[in-house]
Amino acid sequence: MSVLHALKNSPLPGPPPTIICYEKQSEIGGLWNVTWRTGTDEFGLPVHSSQYRNLWSNGPKECLEYEDYTFEQHFGKPIPSFPPRIILKDYFCGRAKNDHAEQHCKFNTFVQYVTYNTCSSCFIVTSKNLITGLFSEDEFDYVVVANGHYSLPNVPTFPGIETFNGRILHSHDYRNASEFKNQHVLVVGGSYSAEDISLQLIKYDAASVTISYRTRGFGFKWPKNIDERPLITHIEDNTVHFKDGTKKNFDSIVLCTGYLNQYDFLDNSLALKTKNVLYPALYKGVVWMENTKLFYIGAQDQFYTFPMFDLQAQFVRDIIIGKLKVPSISEMKDDVALWIEQDKNAIDYDAKIDFQTKYMKNLCEEMKCEFNVDASEMFKEWERNKSENIVTYRDRVFTSMHTKNLSPKLQIPWWEAFDDSYKGFFENF
Amino acid sequence: MSVLHALKNSPLPGPPPTIICYEKQSEIGGLWNVTWRTGTDEFGLPVHSSQYRNLWSNGPKECLEYEDYTFEQHFGKPIPSFPPRIILKDYFCGRAKNDHAEQHCKFNTFVQYVTYNTCSSCFIVTSKNLITGLFSEDEFDYVVVANGHYSLPNVPTFPGIETFNGRILHSHDYRNASEFKNQHVLVVGGSYSAEDISLQLIKYDAASVTISYRTRGFGFKWPKNIDERPLITHIEDNTVHFKDGTKKNFDSIVLCTGYLNQYDFLDNSLALKTKNVLYPALYKGVVWMENTKLFYIGAQDQFYTFPMFDLQAQFVRDIIIGKLKVPSISEMKDDVALWIEQDKNAIDYDAKIDFQTKYMKNLCEEMKCEFNVDASEMFKEWERNKSENIVTYRDRVFTSMHTKNLSPKLQIPWWEAFDDSYKGFFENF
Repeated sequence: MSVLHALKNSPLPGPPPTIICYEKQSEIGGLWNVTWRTGTDEFGLPVHSSQYRNLWSNGPKECLEYEDYTFEQHFGKPIPSFPPRIILKDYFCGRAKNDHAEQHCKFNTFVQYVTYNTCSSCFIVTSKNLITGLFSEDEFDYVVVANGHYSLPNVPTFPGIETFNGRILHSHDYRNASEFKNQHVLVVGGSYSAEDISLQLIKYDAASVTISYRTRGFGFKWPKNIDERPLITHIEDNTVHFKDGTKKNFDSIVLCTGYLNQYDFLDNSLALKTKNVLYPALYKGVVWMENTKLFYIGAQDQFYTFPMFDLQAQFVRDIIIGKLKVPSISEMKDDVALWIEQDKNAIDYDAKIDFQTKYMKNLCEEMKCEFNVDASEMFKEWERNKSENIVTYRDRVFTSMHTKNLSPKLQIPWWEAFDDSYKGFFENF
Repeated sequence: MSVLHALKNSPLPGPPPTIICYEKQSEIGGLWNVTWRTGTDEFGLPVHSSQYRNLWSNGPKECLEYEDYTFEQHFGKPIPSFPPRIILKDYFCGRAKNDHAEQHCKFNTFVQYVTYNTCSSCFIVTSKNLITGLFSEDEFDYVVVANGHYSLPNVPTFPGIETFNGRILHSHDYRNASEFKNQHVLVVGGSYSAEDISLQLIKYDAASVTISYRTRGFGFKWPKNIDERPLITHIEDNTVHFKDGTKKNFDSIVLCTGYLNQYDFLDNSLALKTKNVLYPALYKGVVWMENTKLFYIGAQDQFYTFPMFDLQAQFVRDIIIGKLKVPSISEMKDDVALWIEQDKNAIDYDAKIDFQTKYMKNLCEEMKCEFNVDASEMFKEWERNKSENIVTYRDRVFTSMHTKNLSPKLQIPWWEAFDDSYKGFFENF
């Protein structure tokens, strides 16, 4: 959506480049199109969405606000800083609808394979129409990869896991906390999914949650019935044994163990191979150096989301329309190496936030445009709020960078708010 | 495995054709490699196996016995007629090991795309090594599709299903009855999965099972706590409403709604498009008529399994080695049309069993070999046994067509047998 938006707002005279957006789902929204399905979808393809019912934003919406389309503009008034997922989806789909982005989308179309033909200097995109089942081949001068990387589960194994006598699922297949009511649940993982799902399980009456971590625990002051333990050593029937010598019986195990950054639909010579890091081996975080007509949007780990995608999309657009030139491959590689080195030195959250802010600022410098979306102080405040109280951080309010208005407070705090419908949310401030 | 076996036992002098078997798993066994995983596997591909813990054969093993490798030969003595899944897997993998079938297998290799190059008259197989992530292209004169069609779930939807407040899964993701202990479970479907999973749920202490059918119920004398109702009309939270005006609250819904017969990895011009029928549009049930160097093994619905795959494989081998010729496309189409017409007239189980028996007999006639695997009377007896008592039919015994020996009886009947390990099974007769 950011790419379509950037191309629509092309700074050069004349019509924007022709663009086709292949989308395997039937509508825009990507990960935000939550579904009751797990595993494969109605077409036999892996279900895309990793979201779940009663999910609320886990970061202040002010950090992901579009510079040119504010929340206030979309909703007609300021709204609280941590809205439920349908509110955020409504917001970003709102801008896309204003753009008539759907006109450029081939929905229900799955990209099977992308190769580069050196003779014709074109990309060949083989796609499948999921409704008719027919394959097509199309040629393009440029390809932008923007399919996200929080969809394909990374699923580890543990000795004896096949003997576990309860339910085992990855957070990708977690749909509804109510499925775990009265259960003793083991949550494996040390990042946002583990944190949020653990809280939600207790909010929706799981009997207990134990979080198992690999390197270090969250260390939050959890509500009662949540505890943290080191990694699993082995599993025997319903008993899970941990590195600290303790053991506990569980009804279910939720593996919040992240996602694979995998681009199977791209030929070997085009596919980025990376872990979920703040700076993958892409020039300016977007350009595939071996073939600079190929771009990746949002392939990195993210503090910033929508505003970063927007800057990346503008950068890509400026290359496509010839406003920006990419340097030689050796210059690009040197530049990437410097960023990767800095990424390595960014150990704590504050340093990581500063790193991604600096990266975005650098994109603006390259494009000779103002950097108006510095949310680094808000991100740091958010991290501090979480450390202070993991249960109440969503009740905090932030000020929009663009409207300068302070967001209203939730009347019913998040921990006690069970109605996350559009109507329920708007009645709660 | 049947194809490798048939090619190994080629009736012509000289070395058999070179053959490569692409297998996405790390070992032979296909669907029988049960896993605790659901959704996607460690490589991000949809999990293949649809089998589950404590699964026992739902048909007499005598109906699927290899003509040239008996159960008695494999296990050294006769065994009961309805063994647990690991026993069956051990058996058919035993013959494959004797064949050194693994020598021909490229394991951990996923076939991404198959096309036919009319210039070189070759198939081009694009495959991905899942360990290295690298793609390869290989050329072949013939392609045999033998990936099965009980792996990709067919998942229907119902009005209000997104409001259901419990767990929803397809039988493909059903792993362990114990996950549903004390639950009220709705099972949707009218075939083998629905029948077997319903029984297993009650055997492993689910509180109740309701089976919802589309056309007609099973009509078995179910154990207490299993009932049958017509199709779902709509769902509101945990309450499911049925066509007969009744409603009931459930904790989980298991969709035993079958599988998609889908060959996404084949180019449009090569991909069979069929439902799960006894006679798809393939000449003699195996030859792709538009390109007779392409074959499908086991693409039909199955009473017979291994013995049918063996005959199909022999038929395909005889075409490949030039012993058999395929007729003109119009003759093939006429022949297929006749079979499809007969299939339509085979309404009840007995007629369907006779139809598939006749098809296999016809393959033998084409190959001018004896038909030694007529299991039709055993299949019919099995259907009668099920009608008489769905709980005890697995305690019955049958006589091997090949050894003429009657199988021994289980000492602990299936309904009371909870140890399905290799050791436990061999101590139970």
